Amino acid sequence: MATHGSIDVPRGLAGVVVTETALGDVRGLEGFYHYREYSAVELAETRTFEDVWHLMFFGELPDPARAEAFAARVAGLRRLPGDVADALPAIVRASGPTGAMTGLRTMLSLTGASAGFQPVYDLDVDQRRADALLACAVTPTLLAALYRLGQGLAPVEPRADLGHAANYLYMMTGQEPAPEYARAIEQYLISTVDHGFNASTFTARVIASTGADVAACLAGAVGALSGPLHGGAPSRALDSLDAIGTPDRTEAWVREQVLGGERIMGFGHPVYRTEDPRSRMLRGIAQRFGGQLVDFAVEVERQVEATLAELKPNRALHTNVEFYAGVVMEQCGLPRAMFTPTFAVARVVGWAANILEQAADSKIIRPAARYVGPPPPVPVPAA
Amino acid sequence: MATHGSIDVPRGLAGVVVTETALGDVRGLEGFYHYREYSAVELAETRTFEDVWHLMFFGELPDPARAEAFAARVAGLRRLPGDVADALPAIVRASGPTGAMTGLRTMLSLTGASAGFQPVYDLDVDQRRADALLACAVTPTLLAALYRLGQGLAPVEPRADLGHAANYLYMMTGQEPAPEYARAIEQYLISTVDHGFNASTFTARVIASTGADVAACLAGAVGALSGPLHGGAPSRALDSLDAIGTPDRTEAWVREQVLGGERIMGFGHPVYRTEDPRSRMLRGIAQRFGGQLVDFAVEVERQVEATLAELKPNRALHTNVEFYAGVVMEQCGLPRAMFTPTFAVARVVGWAANILEQAADSKIIRPAARYVGPPPPVPVPAA
Repeated sequence: MATHGSIDVPRGLAGVVVTETALGDVRGLEGFYHYREYSAVELAETRTFEDVWHLMFFGELPDPARAEAFAARVAGLRRLPGDVADALPAIVRASGPTGAMTGLRTMLSLTGASAGFQPVYDLDVDQRRADALLACAVTPTLLAALYRLGQGLAPVEPRADLGHAANYLYMMTGQEPAPEYARAIEQYLISTVDHGFNASTFTARVIASTGADVAACLAGAVGALSGPLHGGAPSRALDSLDAIGTPDRTEAWVREQVLGGERIMGFGHPVYRTEDPRSRMLRGIAQRFGGQLVDFAVEVERQVEATLAELKPNRALHTNVEFYAGVVMEQCGLPRAMFTPTFAVARVVGWAANILEQAADSKIIRPAARYVGPPPPVPVPAA
Repeated sequence: MATHGSIDVPRGLAGVVVTETALGDVRGLEGFYHYREYSAVELAETRTFEDVWHLMFFGELPDPARAEAFAARVAGLRRLPGDVADALPAIVRASGPTGAMTGLRTMLSLTGASAGFQPVYDLDVDQRRADALLACAVTPTLLAALYRLGQGLAPVEPRADLGHAANYLYMMTGQEPAPEYARAIEQYLISTVDHGFNASTFTARVIASTGADVAACLAGAVGALSGPLHGGAPSRALDSLDAIGTPDRTEAWVREQVLGGERIMGFGHPVYRTEDPRSRMLRGIAQRFGGQLVDFAVEVERQVEATLAELKPNRALHTNVEFYAGVVMEQCGLPRAMFTPTFAVARVVGWAANILEQAADSKIIRPAARYVGPPPPVPVPAA
């Protein structure tokens, strides 16, 4: 059918506008991104995670009374259904060492089934949103439980008296986090709720366009995020710091990497032509804590940028969100294996908001392909 | 970023060519579809399911020696890994009555984790294909086990001495099926391996384009297939027959449905403007068995087409794959709740072939969206 009235577009759909959205945008040339009509960085500096979640789901920032009610509502959804919690140990055993992302994919799928999620097109707006709220609320609980079971530790039950970020850290470690760590992770989470029309967000919307339930969409999105060409992996930037060892070896290391055709992890972004605004904010947070790691990171950033400017003068390469996100998560005591899953704690809210927006449409996303194989036989006309 | 050099396309990407493929095509005007260079209906009439699977995965039909070796290879992959089988009862308990499609989504995700599936871009072609073969081979085992556990029955271990379709029926019922039933289901499965660039196939390819593992792609595809706007549900056509009751009530029922603005399930297709070639073939299979159900179905088809031609003279509406697929599956003793899951037994091979084809590319699929919400503040230029 691609031969009848088909439209050719760039490979990978680059620059192809597949939908309208009121959720936000990324302005790569200006180094700016926003959620609805608010600067995302400003939200991260001034608001709670729950406030931003409310903004994404309901279209407006809550007033103080609504903020309190919403935070209490989502805090009340953190506990896993009993049958989901019961299935976790067997799933961790079967998943083996492949990690929390495959576990999250499986467990979001299971949680949706357990909670009886129905096709989005069969639900009214409130019920769709209720399913999405539940899936986002249990994501940190699932991840912390997957991590702890994988370490041979018992899962820690969520606490409803802590904020979303603080409770996540609490469930990871079993200890109430210092407020400055909880706030740093909260700011990181706010800054990564959404970021334009990336592959996992698009995946969630394609699945939602069939009318499938919220868990089907989110399991697909988690799968897309796990791909190495997607969001990257915040832990790789720290692995680079480890490989460099000490600041004086930076220049030699960078030359070796670039001349060997290797990417420098933590640098460069497909959209931003300026500094990544998330990187700038996260560097500020890391410097608030101070210490050897952030001093090293800042020095490496300076030297990498200088060396790259010399070796690749036509390409401005800056740190991306990975670089200082890794530093901040390490400072706050999150294990490296949980860096990408922690990104998912935030992004699931963005995916869910996109699913809700897509579900308000009712048009399936169904493109075409062009057949380029050997020609088939001439069809026999139907009788 | 949608504002810089963006391209607008029709809503839902209809008619937009997003990739080239050598896997097959659908010619809606001619009522013809093909896998690689072969008529799909002819393959269903002359080949085994395993031969067609080989064609999709390796690009050619196997000679007799290869056919035997390939059938033996995939038959050897049917048994679930022990830890996956151990997790099944807990997953069925947690999934509740939401059915085999949500269970399959969860279990394919888990099986990939258990088998240590790695990102497709990190694997060579043989290893990618090995992961895909395993996922396709265990899909019938997972579905039969999910069904039987949901009925309070013990799962039936696969038999390596039966063909793919016969073994599926055997695992569902615990009894070796009559050869004519096994062949009828095999022909149905062959006819639904692939069918153009539908939403679940596109989902699988978007996820694969990030480099994610085969199970991530398949879990997303199963989720998309579960959406009510996707492939439909073969059981709905039989539900229509039940609602009609007897042939003499067909015309009145059709008028009531059409005048009430209801769709007639089992009729009409977004691509075919002629009779659906799958429907024609499946009607032939159903008539081979004969009996009251198929006689009733043929009479309903005749009357529905006549009445629709009168009420909607500008639209030629014919039966689609759902209509006689439901009749054939009912004749062969499959329960209605397993009609869509049985479709997935076939389609998983098509999805997997698409994942393998996409993985040979290395370009992420990442379209754009246009922001249409209230304007954000003017960005502060980066320092």
